[in-house]
Amino acid sequence: MTKKLTYGMVGGGKGSQIGTIHRKALNLHGKVELVAGSFSRNFKNTLITGRELKLDEKRLYNNYVEMAEKESKRNDKIDFVVIVTPNNSHYDIAKSFLENGINVMCEKPLTVTLNQALELQKLANKNNLLFAVSYAYTGYSMIRYARELVKSGKIGEVRFVNSQYISEWMAKVPFIGKVPRHEWRSDPDISGLSNCVADIGVHVENLISYVTNLKIHSLCARMDKFIEKDRLDDNASILVNYDNNSKGIYWTSQITIGHENNLNFGIYGTKGSIEWSQERANYLRLSTIDEPFKIISRGNDKVSDHIKDEYVAPGGHQEGYVEAFARIYDKFVDAIYKRKQGEILTPSDIDFPTVEDGVQGMRFVEKCLESSNQGGVWVNF
Amino acid sequence: MTKKLTYGMVGGGKGSQIGTIHRKALNLHGKVELVAGSFSRNFKNTLITGRELKLDEKRLYNNYVEMAEKESKRNDKIDFVVIVTPNNSHYDIAKSFLENGINVMCEKPLTVTLNQALELQKLANKNNLLFAVSYAYTGYSMIRYARELVKSGKIGEVRFVNSQYISEWMAKVPFIGKVPRHEWRSDPDISGLSNCVADIGVHVENLISYVTNLKIHSLCARMDKFIEKDRLDDNASILVNYDNNSKGIYWTSQITIGHENNLNFGIYGTKGSIEWSQERANYLRLSTIDEPFKIISRGNDKVSDHIKDEYVAPGGHQEGYVEAFARIYDKFVDAIYKRKQGEILTPSDIDFPTVEDGVQGMRFVEKCLESSNQGGVWVNF
Amino acid sequence: MTKKLTYGMVGGGKGSQIGTIHRKALNLHGKVELVAGSFSRNFKNTLITGRELKLDEKRLYNNYVEMAEKESKRNDKIDFVVIVTPNNSHYDIAKSFLENGINVMCEKPLTVTLNQALELQKLANKNNLLFAVSYAYTGYSMIRYARELVKSGKIGEVRFVNSQYISEWMAKVPFIGKVPRHEWRSDPDISGLSNCVADIGVHVENLISYVTNLKIHSLCARMDKFIEKDRLDDNASILVNYDNNSKGIYWTSQITIGHENNLNFGIYGTKGSIEWSQERANYLRLSTIDEPFKIISRGNDKVSDHIKDEYVAPGGHQEGYVEAFARIYDKFVDAIYKRKQGEILTPSDIDFPTVEDGVQGMRFVEKCLESSNQGGVWVNF
Amino acid sequence: MTKKLTYGMVGGGKGSQIGTIHRKALNLHGKVELVAGSFSRNFKNTLITGRELKLDEKRLYNNYVEMAEKESKRNDKIDFVVIVTPNNSHYDIAKSFLENGINVMCEKPLTVTLNQALELQKLANKNNLLFAVSYAYTGYSMIRYARELVKSGKIGEVRFVNSQYISEWMAKVPFIGKVPRHEWRSDPDISGLSNCVADIGVHVENLISYVTNLKIHSLCARMDKFIEKDRLDDNASILVNYDNNSKGIYWTSQITIGHENNLNFGIYGTKGSIEWSQERANYLRLSTIDEPFKIISRGNDKVSDHIKDEYVAPGGHQEGYVEAFARIYDKFVDAIYKRKQGEILTPSDIDFPTVEDGVQGMRFVEKCLESSNQGGVWVNF
Ligand SMILES: NC(=O)c1ccc[n+]([C@@H]2O[C@H](COP(=O)([O-])OP(=O)(O)OC[C@H]3O[C@@H](n4cnc5c(N)ncnc54)[C@H](O)[C@@H]3O)[C@@H](O)[C@H]2O)c1
Ligand SMILES: NC(=O)c1ccc[n+]([C@@H]2O[C@H](COP(=O)([O-])OP(=O)(O)OC[C@H]3O[C@@H](n4cnc5c(N)ncnc54)[C@H](O)[C@@H]3O)[C@@H](O)[C@H]2O)c1
Ligand SMILES: NC(=O)c1ccc[n+]([C@@H]2O[C@H](COP(=O)([O-])OP(=O)(O)OC[C@H]3O[C@@H](n4cnc5c(N)ncnc54)[C@H](O)[C@@H]3O)[C@@H](O)[C@H]2O)c1
Ligand SMILES: NC(=O)c1ccc[n+]([C@@H]2O[C@H](COP(=O)([O-])OP(=O)(O)OC[C@H]3O[C@@H](n4cnc5c(N)ncnc54)[C@H](O)[C@@H]3O)[C@@H](O)[C@H]2O)c1
Repeated sequence: MTKKLTYGMVGGGKGSQIGTIHRKALNLHGKVELVAGSFSRNFKNTLITGRELKLDEKRLYNNYVEMAEKESKRNDKIDFVVIVTPNNSHYDIAKSFLENGINVMCEKPLTVTLNQALELQKLANKNNLLFAVSYAYTGYSMIRYARELVKSGKIGEVRFVNSQYISEWMAKVPFIGKVPRHEWRSDPDISGLSNCVADIGVHVENLISYVTNLKIHSLCARMDKFIEKDRLDDNASILVNYDNNSKGIYWTSQITIGHENNLNFGIYGTKGSIEWSQERANYLRLSTIDEPFKIISRGNDKVSDHIKDEYVAPGGHQEGYVEAFARIYDKFVDAIYKRKQGEILTPSDIDFPTVEDGVQGMRFVEKCLESSNQGGVWVNF
Repeated sequence: MTKKLTYGMVGGGKGSQIGTIHRKALNLHGKVELVAGSFSRNFKNTLITGRELKLDEKRLYNNYVEMAEKESKRNDKIDFVVIVTPNNSHYDIAKSFLENGINVMCEKPLTVTLNQALELQKLANKNNLLFAVSYAYTGYSMIRYARELVKSGKIGEVRFVNSQYISEWMAKVPFIGKVPRHEWRSDPDISGLSNCVADIGVHVENLISYVTNLKIHSLCARMDKFIEKDRLDDNASILVNYDNNSKGIYWTSQITIGHENNLNFGIYGTKGSIEWSQERANYLRLSTIDEPFKIISRGNDKVSDHIKDEYVAPGGHQEGYVEAFARIYDKFVDAIYKRKQGEILTPSDIDFPTVEDGVQGMRFVEKCLESSNQGGVWVNF
Repeated sequence: MTKKLTYGMVGGGKGSQIGTIHRKALNLHGKVELVAGSFSRNFKNTLITGRELKLDEKRLYNNYVEMAEKESKRNDKIDFVVIVTPNNSHYDIAKSFLENGINVMCEKPLTVTLNQALELQKLANKNNLLFAVSYAYTGYSMIRYARELVKSGKIGEVRFVNSQYISEWMAKVPFIGKVPRHEWRSDPDISGLSNCVADIGVHVENLISYVTNLKIHSLCARMDKFIEKDRLDDNASILVNYDNNSKGIYWTSQITIGHENNLNFGIYGTKGSIEWSQERANYLRLSTIDEPFKIISRGNDKVSDHIKDEYVAPGGHQEGYVEAFARIYDKFVDAIYKRKQGEILTPSDIDFPTVEDGVQGMRFVEKCLESSNQGGVWVNF
Repeated sequence: MTKKLTYGMVGGGKGSQIGTIHRKALNLHGKVELVAGSFSRNFKNTLITGRELKLDEKRLYNNYVEMAEKESKRNDKIDFVVIVTPNNSHYDIAKSFLENGINVMCEKPLTVTLNQALELQKLANKNNLLFAVSYAYTGYSMIRYARELVKSGKIGEVRFVNSQYISEWMAKVPFIGKVPRHEWRSDPDISGLSNCVADIGVHVENLISYVTNLKIHSLCARMDKFIEKDRLDDNASILVNYDNNSKGIYWTSQITIGHENNLNFGIYGTKGSIEWSQERANYLRLSTIDEPFKIISRGNDKVSDHIKDEYVAPGGHQEGYVEAFARIYDKFVDAIYKRKQGEILTPSDIDFPTVEDGVQGMRFVEKCLESSNQGGVWVNF
């Protein structure tokens, strides 16, 4: 009976948002066990959270520094750490664990500056550690199939991309009669120099990069602050030019009342197009020049077998966000396991978003700011 | 550090369909651990499956009889067993575990005859054991909210119900170039006297009963066998009269090419209607007499807090089949845990489909057969 | 410069519902002119309506008997009459015009009894007159293409049909604060022995017959009267067996709050299926065994050229109800014109619903009543 | 018996695209009659077309100059002319008729330069003639209701607009095996300096202006030419700033395979949003801060009575493109009629797109070119 891999978590204390989803996503495939944590700045919260999760109290730490150091010295040290704290702390926390020889999964945006991100990238490489970034949407099976379709030439050369991540929560907050939990998102000291682009715009950048493999050549961004009390952008329109003369529009918003988390795209090539929306995550719309429009569902025979092999729910039933998230984790965990077994990883083992993707995200944020701050001029990427 | 509850599984061996989904659903909330199994009639398969799942080989059993007996004698015996074998074996297996004092989660259809189902019900009650049946669709948050809406009178008195579970796999099987794995479904020796009604028709019966609380008074069924080589029904149309003079149409099919697992309903009352489809499981369509049609999504403020508290993914992201399934299991596990702590269960603790629901399903199957075999006459329920 | 054909109308006076749509539909292609009318039982209304329509007052008649007789004696007599009065008067009015040698377009249900309908059929044939019935939905281009697809064998042999015409207006009437204009619909003296089946159920019967060419062999109907003050059926569920062993479910309702005029069908064959809904009238969903689901739109290249030649709006724009209606009229008008030119009509000229379809509709109503009145037994067609 | 108004047409000869739709739209309400035409540069085509339409051959003219002059001298001269020729001829033709005292309906883009458009505006005003431009989409009932909703404050202050007119025909043309009929569209000598923006981009500009009443303050446009053989833009992305600090993205394309004529918008305000798409032209999606998302259909009680009074098909049935077009014409015809009766027009009589809208369209085209030609800089409007 081989033992499961183990992990620790920084952030994700009682009352926080995303940490619990990481834990459920990690539970799903039953391959890893949470054994250590510093869930909050407040140790009491760490204790409460740890007890609810039935952890050994000895592995509940006062802070991440202590955690990184003490865990690194154990024989049964955690195989990786999950960082789910607000943006401004990602850099220091990730650095601590990398320096102590522990693999990292970190939330996006990776850091608050591009430089920090580049440093983490260097450090991870130097220490030969695996470093994933939780761009979870790339875990949907239909996203993976879309990537294959584009690569296969099914829609020809990509000409144009239209992609959006539009949501409403910032516009609704003052009206729902509850103190908004996430005030930090519009606080530059914690969030960094951008709210909307850094929070959800980077998902658009990563998703399109994943599906199309297009490289941004230059962009023109207009970042808006519509809500009075906001201190950072809550909406952004970005014209993008790619290296190969194809073009795109990205739009990201937290003020589009009527959309909860509408992440979507249309990719238009010389021979056809692919469209996807998170609200119908189990389906692709595929159109080609000479055929009727098609709806490809997860259950469809055309979907590649290796993608089907990764299904959690049988074709025809719906898979959701947690299944996508779990798929990303599954690849990450498999890679750690393989390396732990002494095997050498091949490129195809790195089938999850990495620190490089995190770096690209931060470059995207900085370039958008550079363009927007000058009134929406074109800047090279 | 309290220990997790433990469970065993009968069926679900390598190559089988539904067992793995039970395991993922049970993983999701991280409250239970699989520790024992008789995954197949073939002990080699049980061994392979058990090893992959990293179980202690001492708890991999030759057959369910041995498993029930040996587990019942352990101090750390499993808290419940999950039965995911073909229909004809449910009765004997469930009986063994009930007789050995072990709680049961059994797949639907509960048995192959109504009498068997009634016996299991009696036995579970006599031995004071919890007995759940995996009607997983009642675990969707929007189904739970639909039930509340109906109860609250939002749509008035229900007049009419239209519900379908239509699918295509039986019609596609011969064409997809693979030996159909589930031949047993049209083999009366294994499946029982019905295929389509017993396999998916019972989900319609259970779902509508759950959401509306309507009791069937009489029905008129036409069961069809469209596919030549089929030996049992692959399609059925059922007119239903309820106790309160409301009426319904149920339609269940395995030959509707174009539908993967389209479970859906419309419930029409004196003041409004509610509609839902599994393909858009995170949304309800609510129409009332004097307002525009509304789309209620999981993220919406109107959804009751206690339903929201059970969300896995944040409102706005999609939850899928496994999340619904996990919710059913979560309620079942909580009830077992509570009782294990010596507490007394209240009716609200039994928030999962039980052996009573399983019995109703078998009654439904038998009544449909009774009607259809006489050429589609009306029979009392 | 050839003259346009001319027509007269009975019914359709100021304040009535459907007459004005007939006039718009007849206007669309600009081939005919309204020149005579008896728009109401009340001659004052006929005068007002006639003046608004800028008719010559000499051709505004006290009643349809006078109109039929006087028009028949004119050199420039109307080429056809349109009958848009309530159901119970269709028979007498149609008879008058047929006896006076004038072609007829009559609203559905054709009459109030099957016998009346058969008489009209005989009379039209005897007098060699064209007699159309305004089953307007068969005029949608996508319905015409669906018929071709079925005929071509694209979906194989039809196994099952599910079709609905569900609406809400009877359930909403008492709540919208206006006296319902159409009380006559639930008055047996005017409507005949059925309201819902005769009013909209016949559209389902006709539409499915048109698209599939299936003949009903037997049926089992449950007709309901849910609304207290109703005197006739407002909802009906009908199981249908066709001659070739295929089966169907028809559901027609006036109490399904949330549906305005949701006429739809799914037709499931051995190789595929076709689905259509009036709310997306410009699209067909086509599924076949070995391909992804397809959405065929009016603009699609696969649609037959002769169907495209009849488009009013260019492919890609939407055509609505009036365009469908106009297409039916266009075929009827062309046939009258051709015959007037002394040419002999071929079967393909009769590309509109005829008195035979009207007869089938009445047979359907009577058979549903026969079945339902005996408690929902099977009756042969 | 008052006589109908009469009109003439320039362009719209046999084989042309849009002229026939104007004629059907004008037929629908039965208020006007086509009596004169110069349908083509080729008089033979004019004769053929005129005969098919059963016109008096004396009023079929060699060219529009002759037509304008001769018609203006008749006692029964046409009440208005419809101009449906390619873009570069609009100016001269419109000028001729205005100079001869005849009201004009002209296709968009109004002219090929802003200056020409301004001249026409001046001339129409000077000669006190009515001049409409066929921005037909503003004729949809749901567009009219959307405008009312915005005006009423239902969605608060508008913050952001996203609007698209995306289509595929330019990308499909070389593949559909037919000579593309509309080569002139990418010929600068006929089309003007823009193809895509001038052809369909102006519809976006006009529609948003109509619904929101927002004035463009500045814009940044990127116009693309993706198809090799194209000589003008076939795609454009336009960032828009409005006077009141609200912002927008317009995207117009002829290369988005998979979209036939997908004109759509989302308008996001401080309290809610409205969304509409031509493919579901009979519905609005209305979202507000504190309520579930709503689908407003034409049949809904909330729609204003004066909008309902203009329905062609009863609520619940679909109205299409021709009905929208006919509504625009109906307003235009009513205004001409009223003035002809000697009455004075009030602003509310001018309920159709006018030469002012045409001028705005040309300004939009020129500003987009100005921005794009400099590499996508911001230019004031
Ligand atoms: N991938 C996604 O789709 C997604 C979604 C939501 C959030 N996020 C990202 O996840 C991160 C967390 O967001 P959230 O919404 O969960 O925030 P949150 O405020 O809800 O939770 C943050 C948690 O971190 C803890 N914390 C803060 N500083 C800490 C420290 N130094 N040591 C230990 N714990 C500490 C807090 O006590 C809290 O429990 C952010 O970077 C956010 O951008 C990503
Ligand atoms: N709730 C649902 O939506 C749903 C979905 C699918 C299947 N099911 C039900 O689940 C059950 C299993 O279906 P399946 O599709 O997974 O079937 P399957 O044939 O794929 O798997 C059955 C498994 O049971 C094992 N088995 C058979 N007899 C056994 C025995 N005596 N002891 C131990 N193992 C034994 C087989 O070796 C196999 O591994 C059926 O009753 C079916 O109706 C329910
Ligand atoms: N095809 C369809 O989809 C459709 C839709 C609606 C109605 N209909 C049918 O159309 C018919 C009319 O329905 P409606 O809703 O317009 O009814 P309505 O009550 O609105 O109008 C009926 C009109 O007929 C006139 N009329 C009655 N008796 C007359 C007579 N003897 N002579 C002259 N005029 C007379 C009335 O004055 C009135 O103007 C019905 O048979 C109905 O079933 C069909
Ligand atoms: N409102 C819309 O949605 C819409 C849609 C399509 C076209 N249009 C506009 O309508 C106009 C016509 O487009 P189309 O697609 O119908 O073009 P088309 O090429 O199909 O037809 C143009 C017609 O004009 C005739 N013509 C050309 N010059 C003439 C002249 N001097 N005198 C008389 N007739 C002449 C041609 O013979 C032909 O019959 C264009 O300006 C176009 O932009 C608008």
